[in-house]
Amino acid sequence: MKRFGEVIRLKKEYLEEYKQYHANPWPGTNEMLKKCHIQNYTIFHRDGVLFAYYEYTGDDFEGDMKLRAEDPETQKWWELLNPMQEPFENREDGEWWSKMEPVYHLD
Amino acid sequence: MKRFGEVIRLKKEYLEEYKQYHANPWPGTNEMLKKCHIQNYTIFHRDGVLFAYYEYTGDDFEGDMKLRAEDPETQKWWELLNPMQEPFENREDGEWWSKMEPVYHLD
Repeated sequence: MKRFGEVIRLKKEYLEEYKQYHANPWPGTNEMLKKCHIQNYTIFHRDGVLFAYYEYTGDDFEGDMKLRAEDPETQKWWELLNPMQEPFENREDGEWWSKMEPVYHLD
Repeated sequence: MKRFGEVIRLKKEYLEEYKQYHANPWPGTNEMLKKCHIQNYTIFHRDGVLFAYYEYTGDDFEGDMKLRAEDPETQKWWELLNPMQEPFENREDGEWWSKMEPVYHLD
């Protein structure tokens, strides 16, 4: 199992709308996450910054992320939600959320 | 079980030292965390910001945090590590790391 931490900015004017969508996530996009071996996924917010923590239990992360990106419902979700976010300028090629470096872990 | 996300800044000049300490954490401070019902604790870094994710399985969070704060080894750890960090000015009273608001969760 691999743990991921990712970060992105949220445009302040969309905070309430973003929270509302995530308090009532679509069953199909949630199902797709599980199908792609994502578990224990939590998003936190503070002062215009979103932090996501999740665990990946599969053995082909890139393949699973590609599968997820091909899902029409997930694409619709992103079309709605991505414009509310503002990715960091120095993110890696192909990233939207920026991956963080794990520096400590305790089971 | 309750999930926590917390954030603090790390002074850039201490990045390597901070990482080294956390790659070799003290057995006593780790043990104390477990005693205080903290599990699945990960710290991530990116661009001078630290994000911590952990799960609390007890039923007296404040009591457990007080217990932890009274542990001499944990105090020594903080004496070494805290000066490397720079808390957010708008943190809550009594906070060092700032708690984030959970906005989404998938088991």
